[in-house]
Order: sequence, then structure tokens, then C-alpha cells
Amino acid sequence: MATRSTIMDTNSFRAEHAAALDEQTRTLTEKRARLLGDSYRLFYRNPVHLVRGEQQYLWDAQGNKYLDVYNNVASIGHCHPAVIDAVQQQMSQLNTHTRYLHERILDYTESLLKYVPGEVSKAMYMCTGSEANDLAIRVARAWSGGTGIIVTREAYHGTSELTSGASPALGSGQPLAATTRLVPAPDRYRVDTPDIGAWFAAQIQEQIDDMAAHGIKFAGLLVDSIFSSDGVLPGPAGYLKPALDVVHRNGGIFIADEVQPGFARTGESFWGFARHDIVPDVITMGKPMGNGIPVSAMLAKPEVLAAFSDTIPYFNTFGGNPVSIAAAQAVLKVIEDEKLQQHSLTVGTQLQQELAALAAQHDCVGDVRGAGLFIGFELVTDKASKNPDKQRALDVIERLREDHVLTSVAGPHGNVLKLRPTLAFQAHDIDWLVGSLDKALRAGR
Amino acid sequence: MATRSTIMDTNSFRAEHAAALDEQTRTLTEKRARLLGDSYRLFYRNPVHLVRGEQQYLWDAQGNKYLDVYNNVASIGHCHPAVIDAVQQQMSQLNTHTRYLHERILDYTESLLKYVPGEVSKAMYMCTGSEANDLAIRVARAWSGGTGIIVTREAYHGTSELTSGASPALGSGQPLAATTRLVPAPDRYRVDTPDIGAWFAAQIQEQIDDMAAHGIKFAGLLVDSIFSSDGVLPGPAGYLKPALDVVHRNGGIFIADEVQPGFARTGESFWGFARHDIVPDVITMGKPMGNGIPVSAMLAKPEVLAAFSDTIPYFNTFGGNPVSIAAAQAVLKVIEDEKLQQHSLTVGTQLQQELAALAAQHDCVGDVRGAGLFIGFELVTDKASKNPDKQRALDVIERLREDHVLTSVAGPHGNVLKLRPTLAFQAHDIDWLVGSLDKALRAGR
Repeated sequence: MATRSTIMDTNSFRAEHAAALDEQTRTLTEKRARLLGDSYRLFYRNPVHLVRGEQQYLWDAQGNKYLDVYNNVASIGHCHPAVIDAVQQQMSQLNTHTRYLHERILDYTESLLKYVPGEVSKAMYMCTGSEANDLAIRVARAWSGGTGIIVTREAYHGTSELTSGASPALGSGQPLAATTRLVPAPDRYRVDTPDIGAWFAAQIQEQIDDMAAHGIKFAGLLVDSIFSSDGVLPGPAGYLKPALDVVHRNGGIFIADEVQPGFARTGESFWGFARHDIVPDVITMGKPMGNGIPVSAMLAKPEVLAAFSDTIPYFNTFGGNPVSIAAAQAVLKVIEDEKLQQHSLTVGTQLQQELAALAAQHDCVGDVRGAGLFIGFELVTDKASKNPDKQRALDVIERLREDHVLTSVAGPHGNVLKLRPTLAFQAHDIDWLVGSLDKALRAGR
Repeated sequence: MATRSTIMDTNSFRAEHAAALDEQTRTLTEKRARLLGDSYRLFYRNPVHLVRGEQQYLWDAQGNKYLDVYNNVASIGHCHPAVIDAVQQQMSQLNTHTRYLHERILDYTESLLKYVPGEVSKAMYMCTGSEANDLAIRVARAWSGGTGIIVTREAYHGTSELTSGASPALGSGQPLAATTRLVPAPDRYRVDTPDIGAWFAAQIQEQIDDMAAHGIKFAGLLVDSIFSSDGVLPGPAGYLKPALDVVHRNGGIFIADEVQPGFARTGESFWGFARHDIVPDVITMGKPMGNGIPVSAMLAKPEVLAAFSDTIPYFNTFGGNPVSIAAAQAVLKVIEDEKLQQHSLTVGTQLQQELAALAAQHDCVGDVRGAGLFIGFELVTDKASKNPDKQRALDVIERLREDHVLTSVAGPHGNVLKLRPTLAFQAHDIDWLVGSLDKALRAGR
């Protein structure tokens, strides 16, 4: 098994960097260290102090303009007026909870369900992706009568006790639950197999068997279908079908964690799982759903959800409130009106081509892969050895930051640039990103 | 031990009520049943379809005006313009996460920390009270090295797996964690003891001893210091001191769950725990914090928090974002500017007096108790026997709803009206509430 790295901890500000900061930044970082819990991590040795955002751009306190190539929360663009207006309007009318009737939650659910397979026909709403995944695991357990959950080796699924125990990306400080089993992610760059789908399914079966040997009944597979934290591994469309089959054969459910790939980002499809033409039993979503307003959801097959909801009450005070739902409605409408899925495919493909051309010029770029505007750019010591080069990745991230391009890293070795711009990213932004990346790579280690 | 009741399930719409509804309400309830998970519960046999809110009032689709005597989320009043403006303004500028620097989270933390004892000096932000309590339990475990959590018998602390396992109010369908122990709430109406504080501390020690007998190390006590779900039991100020002492003597931490009593509601003090002049180790807060915008927090003593944050990464994507914090800032400023704590004390005391006068006229009202605008009104078969009368409580709730007064029930027997209006509730609203209540009580069973 690969060493569990702490992707949450890479490339971040540390106290020893403070001396090099300008005065305002230093004051803020010191105040932050004093007032906030030490779990908080700042990106970059020289943290960015942002004050304004618009579309794909951000501005810092000095007026410098940044290209946001990382934040999939403000997915339809920072400060999108449609979301501001929707929130403003609903806030002025009413904000209350789901124990009274309100049209918005029903209208939105009807709209949202049009984007998923017909078998998945029930919705529940929360505030964060963590809450959606926490509930999804509980549903898997209620449905299966088991407790065992399988995730990939570098997966991140949330901050709650239950989801943290199924998030190896948090590193060795956070113990995994005794009922969690890990499978390697389907990494076609590093796994040499003619059939990645069959290979991945076999890994899952092996862990289900190991659970059984420990007296743990299998409950389900929880996967981000683009394997973002594992290094952004879209893989060939369709290859997750055998994984779904093996899960079902063993009495578990397939939970598609769409917190990262969902809402049109992958271009080819509206969801990550949809690239594989499979029907998950449960679908969770969050981050981009309200463009920054906290809202998340869990969609499920009714018979699967019933096993939970027939016995366990669930009420989320803010979940599904009219204001959060108004934001979510606006996001969905903008994705439709601005044809952002097609846009993500078109611009994403163009960006991937430019990145591939750049990779051809640099022996330290091992692989470029992606779906739409969700791209992994893997740095290695050299193409022949494929040895992961984490230090170079960190250096590149810092150099990009100095060129005002914001992104970060992923993967078990922390050597994959995770390029995940807002869907407002345009073809004319490619030069800035690729040019800065070229410069950063040429600067060497 | 008292039978675990399901307060989450009382007084709610059921399918068999559908025939009696008007057409629009029936259409919405049917659509809801089809689209949303069955865990969702609607208040009232005849659910309320709300479309507008302002200050302490709500309006339904037919234009009927309601007095909100239940919702402590819109605590400073429905659709308060200060919150709308703050959210609108920040949404138009920037909404991003805590991995970049931003002043708001720091400024707000400084303001908030002024309201808690100086020993509690670190903050972390989430989106829901459940997330705050989930983290608080994890912090208790990291600090103590134990796993055992004590809560009161009818407590409700959240929807996540971890917090649900410490929420007996969810009923027998939701198993408690093997490491959860229950203590009876300090109910002075039903517990005959000269010193409720010593009695409560003894109950806690008993459960700690029981944990030890089972090889479970004690981690902490998690309590809503007004014991809302246990039936609203403010009790005499100061009586929680022995509970704090017993927790500390046994190596655990005291977590004050301020999701319900916090933010000036109790009138006498800004927090429920502050009535007792104690210093909790961890303080959690949520519901009223952003007046409906999802935002929650966990404050902690730095040495307690360090045990967690030194080893476990924690990042909450939406937690502490500038927009949620802008809402929280506006709420705090309104509480100060409009002197809502003093208001809650003044109007709450007046309301309690009127309710006590009403109780004197009805043999079925066993007790009236409260702190500020958080009041329990307990219904019994007769004053002499003190037998809980749940059915009467449910009938009263339905009758109040027909008089357009919204509230609900609490307590292990489901017989306590939980009167928890917005802090925008005024002296001139008392007649409506007390008059309707009198009418409902006179209508008999």
C-alpha cells in the first residue's frame, strides 16, 4: 500500500515564513494564528489576501489580478449576478426550514432530478458535502445491514467523524475507521493493465473479501468518480461499470461523490459518474451547487433511502432552506443558459491540448489528463522513470502564485497539479496559465 | 430510565390527513412525498405554506399572518434588512474559503470572543450546529484520550453519525453509540431534591463510573445548558457548577451546546452557560448565528483544541466564508444595536408573568419556566398528579396553528410547549399568544 500522504498539509504557510511577508499579510497571519484553531491551513508560503472576485478572476488587497484555476465552489464564476440576485430576492421574502411547505425545494428537486437517471428519484438537502457523505454512508449501512465502506487510497470525503474515518487523504493523524478499506485508484499512468475497469473491480472484490475475513459486512463503495484527491484520474469513459457490478453482487451500494466533478465540470457529462453510463444508488453533491452559498444534497433510489428514512429521523435546520435553494436554482439555470457544460468541454479540451503540447517540451511532465475543466498535470523527475516529483510540484505552485495563477496539488505523492478553474474560464485565459506554467517549469527545481 | 420518545416525530403531517387539506396544500404535500426523502416531517396535520416573513411575523400563501413563537433561526427577526444588506454586499465583492486571508473572519472572531470567558480564545467555523458538535466530540476525545460522551436523556445534538449517536431525542430507531451514556435532565418540576446542582453532578458521576466499568474512558459532557429538548429547563442560575467540577475531576471536558440558548435569547446572559457563571472548555453555536444563513462555530480553550488540531487536519469548504461571516457580523451588531439581550429579558419576563397568570387559571398547566424568550409551558392531566398530558399538548399546538400562532413541543413526554419566539417578539404580541393559548386550553381535550 502506498504511504498515506497528507495532501491537506502540502504547500501551506508556516510560521517560519512570516519574516518574509509584507506587513499587512504578516499582521493578518499572526492575528489568524492567535484567533483561529491550528487546523486552519493557509495556501502558499506567501499567503494571498483576497478582497474581490469577478468571473474567473480574483484581486488581492494590492489590486493584483489573479486567475483562479482551483476553486470549483464559485463554479459559474465569482460573484455571479444571477446568484446574488436570487439570494437577495429570497432573503427579502422568507428564509425558513423544511417543516413548512415551500415551492422552491420542490421545484428545484424536479429540475435537479432531470439530470440524473430515473431510478434515482428522491432528494435530501444539507449544507456541506461532508454532511451529504455522512448521510450517504449511514444510508449504505441501513440498506445493507453492513458497516464496511470502501474508498480509494487517497480519497477525501469529508470533515465529520464518519467521513474523516473514510478519508485517507487526511493523513496518518486521522485514523481510518476499522470498517474502512482502501483500494488503489484506477491510475492508468501508473497501473500497467490492459483493462483498468476489470482491474479496479478486482481490487474492490479483494477488499470486500478482506472485510468478510474480519467479520465486517460490506455496505458500499464511496467514490469521487474523477478521483480528484487521488490525482485527477478521469480514465476512459465507461470503465466504472465493473466496479458497480461487483458492489451490487456483494450486496452493497455505489455512492457517487459528485462534490468535485459534479455540475457540468467534466464537460462530457453533467456528473462524473455519467461519463461511465452507470446508475449509482446514491449521489452526493456540494461545493459548486450554490456557487458559495452553503448547500448540498443527497439523491438516492427510493428503495435504498427507505431503509434509512423508515427508521431514523433526519432534520437539517438549514438544509433545503429557501435561500440556499434559490442559490442552487440560479446556478442550475446559469449552467443551462450559458451552456457551461458544452463550454467546459470545448475550453477544457483546448486547454488539455495546450498542456499536452507543453508537456511534450518538458521531460518533467509525466502525464496530462482530464475531463472538461478538471485536469491533472503530473510532475515527475523524468518521463522514463515516472518518479513522482513532489518538490517540483510545490515549487511550481509557488511560482504560479507569484505569476498570480492560483492552483494546488493532489495525488498520493502530492505531485499532480490539480487544474480546476471556474467554468467562467475562457480560451483567452489559456495563455496566462500555460505561459506561467512553462515559465515555472523552465525555472527548474 | 424514561422511555425514549421521538420528539422529532410528534405533531406532524401524515398521509391520512391529506384528504382534509385545501387543494394547493395537498398538491404540495403530495409533490413533497414524491420528491423528498421520507425522513422529512411537516409540522401540523394541516401543514403551513409560508411565503413571506417580516420581524416576528410570517404570512402564508392565502395572506394569513402568523406569530412565530418557535423559530430561533431568524432570531433577530425574519428578513432583517441588516443581514440582507451585509450578505448582498459581501456576495458582490467576494466569496471564497479560509485558505486565503480575509479580514472578516478575524474581525468577527475578535467580536465574538468578547462575549465568552477569556480562557476560551480559539475559534473554528462550520456550517451547521451538527458540524460544530461533531467536531466538539472529536476534540473531547483527542483531549481526553477517551471516547465516552454523556448527554441528557432527551438531548438532541445533531444529524451526523457521531452526533446522532449522542441524540436520544431521535428515538429508538436511531441507536445510541455504545460509548454514549445518558443522565436525566435537571428537571426541578419533577425531580424532588433540595439541591438540583449536586443531584445532577451525582448523576454524571454515576454514568462516568458505569463507563469505567465497561472499560470506556470518559471524554466529556455535552449539554445544551437550557435543556431545550428535555423540556426547556433553565433552572436556577449557577446550578451547573458542580456538573462542570465533576467533569473536570474525571478528566473530561465540558461542551456547552449553545445552538439553542445562545445569542442573547436567555435575556439574563448572552449564552445559556453564562447564567451559571462557568467556563466551558468548548462552546458550540449555530442556528441563530447568521439569522438563516448557514454558519456555525466551535470556540475552545487553546490547550484543549490543540490536542485535536496538532494531529488532525480540518477544512470546511464553506465554513467561515466571507458571506456567512458577514451575516454573522450583522447579527451580532443588531443584537448590540437593538439591545436584544435586554429586550429578551424584559419582554421574556413579562411574557412569563402572563403565562404564569394563565397557568393559575388552568389545572392542566403544571409549570411555566424560562429564561428570557425561551420558555417551557408544561401540560399535565392536573396539577396534583403532574401526569404528563402529551395529547393535550398536541391538541393545543394544532389549535394555536388555527389561530396562526406557530410553536411546537419538547420534553421526554412531548407535553411541554416550547415557546421560543424571535427576539423581535414585542410586548404587544403577548395578547395574541396568551389569548390563543387560553382559548386552546379552554377548548379542553
